Amino acid sequence: MKTLNTKGLTTPKGFRVASGHCGVKASGKPDLMILVADQPCAVAGVFTRSKLPSAPVIVSRRHVRNGHAQAIVCNSGNANAATGQAGLEHAARMCARVAAEPGIERADPRLVLPCSTGVTCQPLPIEKIERGITSLAGGFARGGPADAAAARAIMTTDLAPKQSYRAIGTGKDRIQLGGIAKGSGMIAPNMATMLCFITTDARITPAMMKVALKRSVDHSFNRISVDQHTSPSDTVLIMASGAASNPVIRAPGRALDRFTDALTDLCRDLAYQIAKDGEGATRVIRVRVLNAKTQRDADRIGKAVVDSPLVKTAVHGQDPNWGRITTAAAYSGAALVPDKLSLSIGPGNGVSVYRRGQPATLTAATSKKLATIMAGAEIQFTLDMGLGQATTEWLGCDLSRDYVTINADYTT
Amino acid sequence: MKTLNTKGLTTPKGFRVASGHCGVKASGKPDLMILVADQPCAVAGVFTRSKLPSAPVIVSRRHVRNGHAQAIVCNSGNANAATGQAGLEHAARMCARVAAEPGIERADPRLVLPCSTGVTCQPLPIEKIERGITSLAGGFARGGPADAAAARAIMTTDLAPKQSYRAIGTGKDRIQLGGIAKGSGMIAPNMATMLCFITTDARITPAMMKVALKRSVDHSFNRISVDQHTSPSDTVLIMASGAASNPVIRAPGRALDRFTDALTDLCRDLAYQIAKDGEGATRVIRVRVLNAKTQRDADRIGKAVVDSPLVKTAVHGQDPNWGRITTAAAYSGAALVPDKLSLSIGPGNGVSVYRRGQPATLTAATSKKLATIMAGAEIQFTLDMGLGQATTEWLGCDLSRDYVTINADYTT
Repeated sequence: MKTLNTKGLTTPKGFRVASGHCGVKASGKPDLMILVADQPCAVAGVFTRSKLPSAPVIVSRRHVRNGHAQAIVCNSGNANAATGQAGLEHAARMCARVAAEPGIERADPRLVLPCSTGVTCQPLPIEKIERGITSLAGGFARGGPADAAAARAIMTTDLAPKQSYRAIGTGKDRIQLGGIAKGSGMIAPNMATMLCFITTDARITPAMMKVALKRSVDHSFNRISVDQHTSPSDTVLIMASGAASNPVIRAPGRALDRFTDALTDLCRDLAYQIAKDGEGATRVIRVRVLNAKTQRDADRIGKAVVDSPLVKTAVHGQDPNWGRITTAAAYSGAALVPDKLSLSIGPGNGVSVYRRGQPATLTAATSKKLATIMAGAEIQFTLDMGLGQATTEWLGCDLSRDYVTINADYTT
Repeated sequence: MKTLNTKGLTTPKGFRVASGHCGVKASGKPDLMILVADQPCAVAGVFTRSKLPSAPVIVSRRHVRNGHAQAIVCNSGNANAATGQAGLEHAARMCARVAAEPGIERADPRLVLPCSTGVTCQPLPIEKIERGITSLAGGFARGGPADAAAARAIMTTDLAPKQSYRAIGTGKDRIQLGGIAKGSGMIAPNMATMLCFITTDARITPAMMKVALKRSVDHSFNRISVDQHTSPSDTVLIMASGAASNPVIRAPGRALDRFTDALTDLCRDLAYQIAKDGEGATRVIRVRVLNAKTQRDADRIGKAVVDSPLVKTAVHGQDPNWGRITTAAAYSGAALVPDKLSLSIGPGNGVSVYRRGQPATLTAATSKKLATIMAGAEIQFTLDMGLGQATTEWLGCDLSRDYVTINADYTT
């Protein structure tokens, strides 16, 4: 019997994966991954809102529109972004090569979804990738080691591979979901240089899966921000093999809600792992906004706080400089009435530092408690706007000297 | 005859200034400044758009509404922000104490504009400031040394004092303008923890000065961003003594335009000095956006590029990573058509790196030129959107390890 930790991408029935090094990364680290389904799957995708999407995003978006796919091919080390017409041809060649290997129905390249992540503005070394695809195609596997290797093969500046698994129902109705993700820089909502590939054995129509995925991404990846720089490559893909035996989810209702909840939970787990692995990050910042006037206001405030370089550096310095948090809320554009605003720091109710427009008087004991909270690995800020009912939660990370070091010298 | 460099705040006729140390800053550095006019002046102000303005902003905004003022009093070291009701009382006490000294008409505190900059959330040491005001009131002066000392007394994390001077017209129509500014962190449009005090001897109505100031600020301080964190304290004030002999500017027209142009020029000079002195900055980033679809689009793009941590770290690392610039434009929300977008780096026409959607092929010579440009003290990016007629120019600075160091430990 496997433990939970070893369950992942290929635990849902009907999928196999292969990964390895094909030569895109000069370091010799793994840089290519292929996930294949035994048969064409229902597919849904959410992509970057950048107006300069990368070549693979353009191709994958087109292929996802068909509603079915059988494979995802992803290289790391080069994003094939800002590469013009040649980039589009390279992305198409990745699909064609995967489709030419045995197993893809009618060898149809439209059933293959290409993804690339890494440096931008550089031509993709397509011959290396094509040779790599052929080489990997001989070794598809299922199980923990193959899943973990796949999670590593899509990493760029990530320090840790990111995997997650969820299951709902029992017996005949059991549905499983597995996923891997990457991302630690250019992480901003809508979305980030983040890739996430999810498998499920659920029986569900492409239309319903699209609804579920959109809602899940809105409540997970769209509420994290490492550095507010939306990438041209952001992609979340889910493939459903239909190998489970649940009644097919064809319409909104309780079964779709349960599926969406499990998918959201899995996406939030991966989003948390991404925030935690933010480039140079030493702490996760969790911003809860309560009682905002509107949902849009709540999210504007959450985003403004996690994006503020001054909040991020204060957290890095373990400095409970709460004025930076309230002032970030104050410039977010959201409705704010000073006399109704309260802020606390820490888990649960936390330490109240600002109460209905007035700074709280801190005792020696609460100051000490605050210092302990600020020294932790996760810092939670709770802003109570006192204006309405809308609530949200955003994740981010601190800003360190290492972030600067990583990004000042990335291409060299 | 003075050189241009020694002209400043008190060169326009009718103003005197005093500054010194009163004890707000533990370092012993200057932390208090009073600028007085011989008589009540026409006044205009532009203030932070933060929904949590500091106490002095609330009071100054109210006093500016009267259209006349005779003094500006400013302490550094403590912003009197997020200080609740006590903060408002402290700001009022600063005005009352200045008004109680000889020279303010009818000892009216409403003719005094209070400003504070420094740490937030801490009670202002008002007794020290009151004693300091009385002490300074004995030593008002005009001229270069007094102006330079005033520019130093309003500094917080600034490394350099910021002064500027402009003059228009000759003989009887001569109008002079002088100004000082501070700001290097929490610098974002609308506006920043920046203060700017401007004097002029022009004869102009408060209503016309308001028009001129708003337009000037829009084209200067509202187009710089060091760290996108709008401060609760941002203030630009201008006082016109009317000691010149120009025909009073009472209505829009050529005289107002000339005055506005000179004021804009002075504000841009000070804005440039602020961007250059951005916390931890080693380089100024100048983003020119040409041929955007709308003015709003042009400014969204300019702001997105100068705010992007990835652009800022690339500039810090002298890395011509132009994909980060185009992708920032692509997530700005502005209209963008990939095939029409071009980007060049460097002054004048610069080095073309992206031309109508295609990466430019760089020769060894152009690569070398690019490396030289990236090693300079000011890096200019020109984005040609190819969509319309709107143009803008934004200023920012790079993001260094020192920015993190400065802001991770600011209050301690």
